[in-house]
Amino acid sequence: MKLTPTEGMRDYLPSENSIRDRLMQQIREVYRASGFRAIETPAVESLENLENSDGGDNLKLIYRLEKRGQKLEKAIEAGDFAHLCDLGLRYDLTLPLSRYYACHKNELETPFKCIQIGRVYRAERPQKGRLREFVQCDIDILGSDSMDCEVELISVTAEALLAVGIDEFRVRVNHRNLLRNLIIWCGFPAEASDTVCVTVDKADKIGFDGVRAELIDKGFSEEASDKLIGILTGDLRLETLAAYGCAEEAALLSDLLAKTNALADGKYEIIFDATLVRGQGYYTGTVFEIECPAFGGTVAGGGRYDNLIGKFCGETVPAVGFSIGFERIFSVLSERGSAAGGKERIALFYDEGQIAEAIRYARTLHGEYDVSLIKKKKKVGKQLAQAEAQGYQYAEFLETRERKPLGVN
Amino acid sequence: MKLTPTEGMRDYLPSENSIRDRLMQQIREVYRASGFRAIETPAVESLENLENSDGGDNLKLIYRLEKRGQKLEKAIEAGDFAHLCDLGLRYDLTLPLSRYYACHKNELETPFKCIQIGRVYRAERPQKGRLREFVQCDIDILGSDSMDCEVELISVTAEALLAVGIDEFRVRVNHRNLLRNLIIWCGFPAEASDTVCVTVDKADKIGFDGVRAELIDKGFSEEASDKLIGILTGDLRLETLAAYGCAEEAALLSDLLAKTNALADGKYEIIFDATLVRGQGYYTGTVFEIECPAFGGTVAGGGRYDNLIGKFCGETVPAVGFSIGFERIFSVLSERGSAAGGKERIALFYDEGQIAEAIRYARTLHGEYDVSLIKKKKKVGKQLAQAEAQGYQYAEFLETRERKPLGVN
Repeated sequence: MKLTPTEGMRDYLPSENSIRDRLMQQIREVYRASGFRAIETPAVESLENLENSDGGDNLKLIYRLEKRGQKLEKAIEAGDFAHLCDLGLRYDLTLPLSRYYACHKNELETPFKCIQIGRVYRAERPQKGRLREFVQCDIDILGSDSMDCEVELISVTAEALLAVGIDEFRVRVNHRNLLRNLIIWCGFPAEASDTVCVTVDKADKIGFDGVRAELIDKGFSEEASDKLIGILTGDLRLETLAAYGCAEEAALLSDLLAKTNALADGKYEIIFDATLVRGQGYYTGTVFEIECPAFGGTVAGGGRYDNLIGKFCGETVPAVGFSIGFERIFSVLSERGSAAGGKERIALFYDEGQIAEAIRYARTLHGEYDVSLIKKKKKVGKQLAQAEAQGYQYAEFLETRERKPLGVN
Repeated sequence: MKLTPTEGMRDYLPSENSIRDRLMQQIREVYRASGFRAIETPAVESLENLENSDGGDNLKLIYRLEKRGQKLEKAIEAGDFAHLCDLGLRYDLTLPLSRYYACHKNELETPFKCIQIGRVYRAERPQKGRLREFVQCDIDILGSDSMDCEVELISVTAEALLAVGIDEFRVRVNHRNLLRNLIIWCGFPAEASDTVCVTVDKADKIGFDGVRAELIDKGFSEEASDKLIGILTGDLRLETLAAYGCAEEAALLSDLLAKTNALADGKYEIIFDATLVRGQGYYTGTVFEIECPAFGGTVAGGGRYDNLIGKFCGETVPAVGFSIGFERIFSVLSERGSAAGGKERIALFYDEGQIAEAIRYARTLHGEYDVSLIKKKKKVGKQLAQAEAQGYQYAEFLETRERKPLGVN
């Protein structure tokens, strides 16, 4: 039997769980206060849906579930190794949400503002800080193409980060069509814009020299490549972008920046970044990311995906979402010694044969305290030391009702 | 693309999620007040652990995850259909907890009282009310063989049910050794006691005539079978059981019943039931179930499993747990029109171009209300009707600050 958790996945101790619980609760509260409502979808999706979801590199990381019963027997009889699986674990919350909305839209309000907080799964190569089971906290607005949605999502997500104690972050925004138009303006063929984007997306890892080399390596002209790099590394302001065939998107982003920066009250900043790509293929318009240097990079990401729901119901439904990567926030905040939530805890010591009395007395304390019943041993000193080490604020003895504070309390 | 959720799994609407969230919160609060602390384990376990867990029929219902990368390629090259999977989805929370405790026991208090609320997976045949992804709410006490644990688990689980509005339930208790000793006393061979138990477990479905027929069908003597049926259908009280070689277990259960019934204050009842078996093979001592006729049967089940943790760490660690089947509770309480939790909700209507002002004003209301921003259309009457249908308590107009109650409010 294997003692450790599944590789790349984690157990959480009670002290860690208290922090996680509080963080999720705080994030959920901010979302709810702004009228977003929580839904739940299964962690298991049909493999067909997952594989046709335009999820970019994430599609390579899907955990696949083997068929069961006769279906499995048939596939094995046919020697059909490629079709032994029919289900998979969700790699994000956006794809299940798109299916959900297409399935239930007649029962939902329009536009539909929703929260999903849940576990997702990616079979990543093991590396520091990359979990294979992790929690995402998403808000989405479905059924509206208004840029008001972006204003609201950015503002509310930023509020959630502030609520859990994260500051000093920046929101970077871009528009898929802006980068696309710029690429075409530089002389790349229109159908090549996706692959050019993939290379540009690597700028923070390989530098712009690396981007140039890769573009030329991919067979694009030096002229187009130099033009693009020149613009991206130059003084790229929204006001000057009209010259490159991006007037419409530049105007939209200018308006978005003005409104969101006004709402930020100087606590954080929203900036334009023409090099922001975001990996998922399903994005169609604005894309955004929140970067926080103290958290080692990106803590949230999102964008508009106007074509994903249509894949399910045949009718185009505009949609936009923002997702907080919970694990990165949790790991930094727990290292900082973030406070757990909850009531003060009493270790209530009782004697052999007194369990019923102990339970009855503990009930009278439950309004104010969490009370753990511990049967007294001969060496109660050792038990008291353990209670203190486990973070109880008080020890109390049932027999005498004597209560004493523990530790630094 | 498939529009509906994975077969046997469910989407939940916002109104349903509100109820689920409130129920889980209430249950968690009761558990926490009694000193139990929440932990988290991955939903994915090694297949080796799952398959060696003595989980009874549940082992047939495991969702298996295909290997990835080179491991999968190797298995396929070898034509090895039996070893294409290395992981599985957990079918309960007890097995992951046992691994967890064995792995982390040096960091945990002794005894360790813990809460797990999480999703589990069983590839059941589709049938009414049986979900393939469902939530269990477990409390367990690990590291103590005292019957005080059973007193506490039964009392706290019953409190949790009362807290969410469930009453009129009965707790049935039995002891694995009691039934075993009884079976041996009747003349069955000791090594046959498990298979006899399996048959006795069906009494509520096939009746005792059916049990008798099946025992004889299995090749057991008429004499032993008649003796057993005679005792089980007779006036079977704990006081008379000493005569059948069950004196020790009868005394333990008598004590347990006396204490738990005293703590029940007449709100529910704890009774002895010699026919209670519980399916899982890993139970070693007391077993218990809560049945609630209004909920169509069993709403919680548990028992002592003193040998499961030892499979991981080689050293015997006594353990006992009680699990609430969340879905049955949710389905009945939501049919009853159980109230959702949370603050009152305002639909705040704003005009084109006013999103930033709307967000700023909404922030001033967030302490008291959940506020959803809705862009006003020409036909605001239709929008108001939709807001009312969606359960908003108030509509408010940003421009005039006019607030009006909706519906029956």
